[in-house]
Formats: sequence, structure tokens, C-alpha cells
Amino acid sequence: MSEIQTTTIDQLGEFGLIDHLTRRFKLINPTTAKGIGDDAAVIHADNGKRILVSTDLLIEGVHFDLMYTPLRHLGYKAIVVNLSDIYAMNGHPKQVTVSIAISSRFTVEALDEIYEGIYHACQAYGVDLIGGDTTSSSKGLIISVTAIGEAEDEKIVYRNGAKEGNLICVTGDLGAAYLGLQLLEREKRLFLENPEIQPDLDDQKYLVGRQLKPEARKEIIEYFEEIGLKPTAMMDLSDGLSSDMIHICRQSAVGCELHESRIPVSEDAYNQALTFNMDPITCALNGGEDYELLFTIESEDETKIANHPYISVIGQITAQQEGCMLLTKGGNRHKITAQGWKHF
Amino acid sequence: MSEIQTTTIDQLGEFGLIDHLTRRFKLINPTTAKGIGDDAAVIHADNGKRILVSTDLLIEGVHFDLMYTPLRHLGYKAIVVNLSDIYAMNGHPKQVTVSIAISSRFTVEALDEIYEGIYHACQAYGVDLIGGDTTSSSKGLIISVTAIGEAEDEKIVYRNGAKEGNLICVTGDLGAAYLGLQLLEREKRLFLENPEIQPDLDDQKYLVGRQLKPEARKEIIEYFEEIGLKPTAMMDLSDGLSSDMIHICRQSAVGCELHESRIPVSEDAYNQALTFNMDPITCALNGGEDYELLFTIESEDETKIANHPYISVIGQITAQQEGCMLLTKGGNRHKITAQGWKHF
Repeated sequence: MSEIQTTTIDQLGEFGLIDHLTRRFKLINPTTAKGIGDDAAVIHADNGKRILVSTDLLIEGVHFDLMYTPLRHLGYKAIVVNLSDIYAMNGHPKQVTVSIAISSRFTVEALDEIYEGIYHACQAYGVDLIGGDTTSSSKGLIISVTAIGEAEDEKIVYRNGAKEGNLICVTGDLGAAYLGLQLLEREKRLFLENPEIQPDLDDQKYLVGRQLKPEARKEIIEYFEEIGLKPTAMMDLSDGLSSDMIHICRQSAVGCELHESRIPVSEDAYNQALTFNMDPITCALNGGEDYELLFTIESEDETKIANHPYISVIGQITAQQEGCMLLTKGGNRHKITAQGWKHF
Repeated sequence: MSEIQTTTIDQLGEFGLIDHLTRRFKLINPTTAKGIGDDAAVIHADNGKRILVSTDLLIEGVHFDLMYTPLRHLGYKAIVVNLSDIYAMNGHPKQVTVSIAISSRFTVEALDEIYEGIYHACQAYGVDLIGGDTTSSSKGLIISVTAIGEAEDEKIVYRNGAKEGNLICVTGDLGAAYLGLQLLEREKRLFLENPEIQPDLDDQKYLVGRQLKPEARKEIIEYFEEIGLKPTAMMDLSDGLSSDMIHICRQSAVGCELHESRIPVSEDAYNQALTFNMDPITCALNGGEDYELLFTIESEDETKIANHPYISVIGQITAQQEGCMLLTKGGNRHKITAQGWKHF
């Protein structure tokens, strides 16, 4: 018989709690001059580099469901999705602040799980936790993360730089996170109908993992630096390829043509989509949360990325009046539309 | 007959909403290279200055009560309390990010009110709104603000620099925000008991204003620069004088002696405390949210601040083993204890 030890937050008090949760975090970046413990954290910008700032708010019941989201993965994901925004500027994340609001049903051990995930994300991506706020919520769990990064001014890539004739690229494969979510939602429904049935997701580790514990494309940004490639426009895929591609086109005042046959979909995602009677390409176009990078490059740079195993060229930038189009395998041209995640 | 026009958030869509809410905000700081509209905002650190970062999470039902908090004041306060943290480092706030989660009961007009307050705070303090996130909440209103500021490295004031013999100073007067809150809570109770009774707070504008629409001490930081004074330690009073003084003492490994007779309490706060059968000094020691600055200075700097109308010298730093003490008007010495705000 094992006993599970639980500690209430009251037992530690607010400052005891912060000490407890953050004691493992050591500052690793030389530009982090002061982390947790004062009114504000202090950063010094490295050699006149630009500072990048991005922030996200994650709300239980809107952005995640604790019925199937392990707290540790949630902590990891909360960090990663913010770092992804810094990489999407062609920058390097260096610091994060994390604010958490929890209802009284959470124990210190539950918070420890969240911080375990935060810790591992910080270690994996080399970022410092430099501040935050811990408070109670009237309902549910709320996590607010701000990521801070740096980049040389001339290397920053915005969404508005795509030019006619540029090639459109994505990293990794698309649609898997969305299909992972559908699997988790299906298992949740089955469980609620009959709690005796235990979920069986062992065959679907890839899809579920892409949903619950995504990674940000650090190595691609490092690869760009290594080969001396600067994309003309870039963003990370959080809302879905269609929606995010339309963003780049709008901000760059251009159109695009995506080739259905070139959109990368993993075998697992392809098979699972068919099992669900869904079109795999529709999942890739409209499913969100892949956190892959969508970027455009000058056509003469194609050789630089041609042999990279995780970069696919999926289309080209056209004139604005051409609109945002998908060239299907059957040779038809369809207008793509933004569906994306609706949180309202 | 006037009709009140309401717009649902669905009518605008997420991006339409962000455009709508932020269209008035123009970037005013030359160090803000890119604001809203990309994966991350871009800042350039001015001449090698340090970057300061502070963040706060405000939750309906925990940090504010919409029964008596005008949304416009709430937006203003959400910004100001974060700027206060940057001033408390002897720094100058330059940018903020604001993330808001709202339940579906909020209309666009309600959000407009919050952003009206945010706008006025940004204008009053000269900061740029550079990013954020707008999402739905399952319950209530949530506001997360990150403030970013700058300071020359050698001017940054931490909490851990107080030295034996230093003088302890506060700005403004204390306890008023707490008494304002008590007044609002009383009116709320009366209203809930009998909705016919309309609140009468006209005589209490100062106290209620200190609670609902606090200001940060920008002009004091500018005054320090003008007279060439650098405090040895500083923080802003959010949890209450006792609690925050103990923080400085702990982090600086010193003790303190506060003089009851020197703690500044406004006439309004004094009278209202007596009406409530409270001790005015207890309100000043334990009431939070005054957002005044608590700081320590070298004793030889006393002349520099002696004539400032909003700075009071309230005691001196002692050796750590002396503890944190209050010297009462009657000549007794009491240990001060941290009460502060409890959010758990």
C-alpha cells in the first residue's frame, strides 16, 4: 500500500510556494542579470541585439482539458508554444515569465507537476524562468507565459516580407496535433459513457504526443544560421496552414498557390484521418497547434534547403490578385479559407 | 429614449476584435521597433541599457469585483500596477503586453471600456501596447499584463541593498486604498440587502479613487534622477507596509525600526478608519494596494528629500538581530508581522 502525500498551498504560503516551485531553476543565460525575487527581472541586451517579446494566455476548458492533459505536459506545452513565437521571428528565446492561477482544489503536488514540465522545457530550450505571479482563481487553471528572446536586427523575419515568386516552405508534418486532439476527445466521450473502459492510445503515441507535448523548431532556426539563409516571411503554425498562410499573404500583399500533393502529412495522421472519415489534407490545412514553421524563401535559395529532411516546399507566392489557392492532386484550383481555432 | 448598442465578439471575429481594440494605440517610444501584429514584438535596448520585465495576473473575484469596479478603471489599474513594479526598480516603463480572457457575457462595448482605461494609462505613462492575446474564459474576466522597462545598469535598485543606518522612506500616504476597498465592500453588502439603496460615496472620492484608480510614482523616479539620488533598496507597496518592509529586511539581511508617528495617513483615511472602528496605523501597515514606493537611502542623503512634499522618512534600518520593529507613539516597541493580501 502506498500513500499519496498531498500538501495544501496554505501550508506553504505564497512566498514559500514560489520558493518551493522555483528552487531547481538556475539561470543559464549570461544576458539574464536578475531572475525571480524582485519587483522586476533584469535582462541585458547582448551587443545591441533586438529584444523579442511574445505572450499567451492558456485557460482550462478553452485551451486544454485536464481530463486528458497530464499537468507535466501542460507545463511543457505552455512554454513551448511561446518559444515557438520567438523562433518564428528567426530569434532565440532566452527568458520566460510564468503566471499561474489555480483554484483551491489544486495541491502543491499538482503545481509541482506543472513546474516539472516548465523546468524540462526551460532545460530543453535553454531559457531562464525569470518571473511570474502565482495566485488563486475562482475556477480552473490559468497559465500566462511571456517569452523574451533576442535577434540581430537584420536577421528578424516578419510576416510581411513574402514576395511574388518566393517559395513557400513548412517544417515537419501537419495535421497530427489536430488528429491527436480528436483521438483524446473520442476517448474522453467513451470514458464518460462508460468509466470501465480504459483508453487505448498506445498505437497513437505520435498523434497524441503532437497534441499534448509539441516541440518548437529550435533546430531549424539554428540551421538557417548555419547555412546563412534568411526567410523572407515566417510564422509558426498555431491556427492551421490555411489560416496562417492567409495571414502572411495579407500582411505581405501577395497571393499564394499551395500544392496539395506536397503538403506533408505523416503516415499515422493519414491513416487516422481515414479512420475518422476525414480528408487528411483538410486536417493539415485547418487543424491547428502543429507549431511547425511556415516560411517563404527566395527561389534561388531552394538548393540550400533541398536536402533538409524536415523542410518541404509546398507552393509559391503569387500576385495578390491571384488570391490564396490550393492546386489539388486532380489539377483543380480551390480558394483556401481561414478556419483556424475559434475560441469565441 | 436612448438605445444602447451592443456588439457580440462573434460579429467581429478574433482578428477584427484585436484591430478594433488597438486601432487607437500609436507607438510612441523610439525603442519600440514593432508592436502588435506579428509573432512577437521587437524592442531595441537603448544604448546598452538593461531591460526590466514584470508581470501580473488579475482575476475577477480574486483581485477585483465587477460589482463596483468600472471596467475603464480596471483597465487603467491593470497597467498601472505593473508599471509600478518597473518604477520600483528605479526604471522607466516603455512597453506593455495585455492578454485578456473574457466569458461570452462580455460585449465588444465592455471590452472597449477596458481598453479605454488601458489607453489612458499608456498615454499618461508614455508606454506602448506592443502585444497580447485575446481569448475566451470559461468564467469571469482575466487580465494578464507584462510591463517592460529600461534602466541604466548602475541605476537599478534592488530589494537587497538596505544597510544598517539607512533611512526608510515612503511616498504619499498609506492605508487609503484599503479603506476605499472596505467602503466599496460595505456599499455592496448594503446594495445586496436592499437594491433600492443607492451607494453614496461622494464624500469618499479620495479613498475610493485610491482603490479603483491608483497611480504609479513616475514623478518620484524622475525626481531621483533630477537630484541624483539612488536609493539603496526599493519596492512598491502592494501587499502593505509591514509585509513589504519585512521583504526588504529579509533580502537585505537587516532589521528596521518604524516610527508610528511618522507613518503618513491622509485625513480622509484617518477619519474613515475611526468610523469603521479600526486603527488608522493598522490600516496603513497592513492594507495593501497603495502602490506607493518604499525605499531606503543613505542617511547623508536625507537633505536631498527633506523638502519633498510626498516623501516621508518613517524610520531607519537596524542590525538584523534587532528584528522588524514599530516604535509606537506611546514609546513601546512592537514586532511587525506580515499580513498582506492573502489570495489563497
